[in-house]
Amino acid sequence: MSDPLQTIAAFLRKSQRFLIATHVNPDGDALGSLLALGHILESMGKDVFYYSEEPVPYIYEFLPGSERLDNRLPEANTVDAAIAVDCGDEFRLGREREKILAFHPLIVMDHHSGHKEFGDLRWVERSRSSTGELIYDLATALGVRPTHEAAFCLYAAIASDTGAFRYPNTAPETFRIARELVLAGVNPAEVAGRLFNNFTVHRLNLLRAALGTLRLFAEERIAVITVTQKMFEETGTTLADTEHFINYALALATVQIAVFMREAKDNRLSVSLRSKGKYDVAKVAALFGGGGHRNAAGVRVSDRRMEDFWNILLKELMLTLAGQDE
Amino acid sequence: MSDPLQTIAAFLRKSQRFLIATHVNPDGDALGSLLALGHILESMGKDVFYYSEEPVPYIYEFLPGSERLDNRLPEANTVDAAIAVDCGDEFRLGREREKILAFHPLIVMDHHSGHKEFGDLRWVERSRSSTGELIYDLATALGVRPTHEAAFCLYAAIASDTGAFRYPNTAPETFRIARELVLAGVNPAEVAGRLFNNFTVHRLNLLRAALGTLRLFAEERIAVITVTQKMFEETGTTLADTEHFINYALALATVQIAVFMREAKDNRLSVSLRSKGKYDVAKVAALFGGGGHRNAAGVRVSDRRMEDFWNILLKELMLTLAGQDE
Repeated sequence: MSDPLQTIAAFLRKSQRFLIATHVNPDGDALGSLLALGHILESMGKDVFYYSEEPVPYIYEFLPGSERLDNRLPEANTVDAAIAVDCGDEFRLGREREKILAFHPLIVMDHHSGHKEFGDLRWVERSRSSTGELIYDLATALGVRPTHEAAFCLYAAIASDTGAFRYPNTAPETFRIARELVLAGVNPAEVAGRLFNNFTVHRLNLLRAALGTLRLFAEERIAVITVTQKMFEETGTTLADTEHFINYALALATVQIAVFMREAKDNRLSVSLRSKGKYDVAKVAALFGGGGHRNAAGVRVSDRRMEDFWNILLKELMLTLAGQDE
Repeated sequence: MSDPLQTIAAFLRKSQRFLIATHVNPDGDALGSLLALGHILESMGKDVFYYSEEPVPYIYEFLPGSERLDNRLPEANTVDAAIAVDCGDEFRLGREREKILAFHPLIVMDHHSGHKEFGDLRWVERSRSSTGELIYDLATALGVRPTHEAAFCLYAAIASDTGAFRYPNTAPETFRIARELVLAGVNPAEVAGRLFNNFTVHRLNLLRAALGTLRLFAEERIAVITVTQKMFEETGTTLADTEHFINYALALATVQIAVFMREAKDNRLSVSLRSKGKYDVAKVAALFGGGGHRNAAGVRVSDRRMEDFWNILLKELMLTLAGQDE
């Protein structure tokens, strides 16, 4: 079996024009990896088209190159390959999935534990903390020393997906790469500040309101917090302002599984699940058509009232706690 | 000039019985470094006396060995040396300062930027993130491979003083040592969970109340949050429950200096100051008899009402902002 990293590196070396895409509702690892890969390819003299169907969330606008993201796809014959980074499955490509799947070769680089294969050239490492780690190793394989911009984006990708080295996916490799990126000029406090100290007063008010909704179940082992459309309106905030809020529910010492439910527009719910080590919330998310990692997963729900969905979800979570306590 | 690390290592090797102390109101770096050093010396077959004038704060009880801390000092002739770790000056030794200073040799290992010299054998590195980094290097110099317990305490010390690699003191060395400690068996998420996910519901209620007191000054560049005795009583919490609360004020994107004032018992105030990079809050703290680092400092105030002290402090902070904006 040939080494997928070397196969992809060889293809990138000999080609010229690339489209790079990532998953919908992009997070720090998605955007950081996409932009870092673009910077790396450009420093090799390649042409890069940066695609995202949605505008960059304001909390990620600090990532260098984010202004270059475009929501229109190029014509198929104008690029030599499309690259999907940090996509756990083809449906995460979003509205233009069919068009992106029509690009060949479609190169896929991902780290999601529940990754479902798609694309032509695939490099998936389910044990890595972040796609950012893969892109760093790709740069090394390409013999490219990351520019400051690329290193900054990679550090942001890794710090974002590891909660700044606090999540269970943090490994010796993660620290090795973080050290290299700091030696390349990245200021860890600057990136952490941009990722985690990005509150507006509005957002802090939303956090206070969200903390006020905390409820505990199953002997304080399950926590749920909620944000309603009314709370968004009263505080002048949007869905993007709720990033990382779930960590406050997870911060309770007794809590094993934390849930964060938000009312999105069009009568939809956006539900995040987190667990501490032992419990697999990706399995629970999968029951409702969602996905993610063992300790961090999500579900999108349509046409269901928050409390109705919560009653169903809670039952599954209780089963999860019971099943794994046996 | 002889290398203080090697001098101290040589002395530790040839001696047998040690008293280890740290600063009053010990934080994660103080306790983690003290306990790690004890574990390292014990794995060399030495006898160690662990001193702390106060009981271990409950949020640090997870540190292995914390149950061995004792608030009685041994007789001077029963130990070969006393070791003070993470003490910025002799007054941080607390009530028994005079007695500890009477031990000889008194070995001092510290990293505080405003360190004031005391003791007989001194190793002070003001650029290091934490005393935990020094103790790791000391273990290396001693040829001791840290046991799991020692590695765990060192990782906790470093993660605590760097806010898990988020503060400006995080350096390539920090990541090098973190990687080594993870390779030695430390689980980064376990330590981060113990340090940062240690909330009780009471503590979360206190956080909500504290966030409700947020006030902003100087075009939202100065933030202050407060906790009163009444809030402690209403939520069933104590001073120890306010650890890291100041980070929520610092998390506002516009804020350059954050202040957290708590009403302690006996009509005293405990005031924490944090800044983002540019401003030196240790200088401001020093005006009121406090101290600390450029970006993290503290003051204890007696017999002053919170609002009265705030009015005086705010003036100094405005001058600090003005002076460094020139």
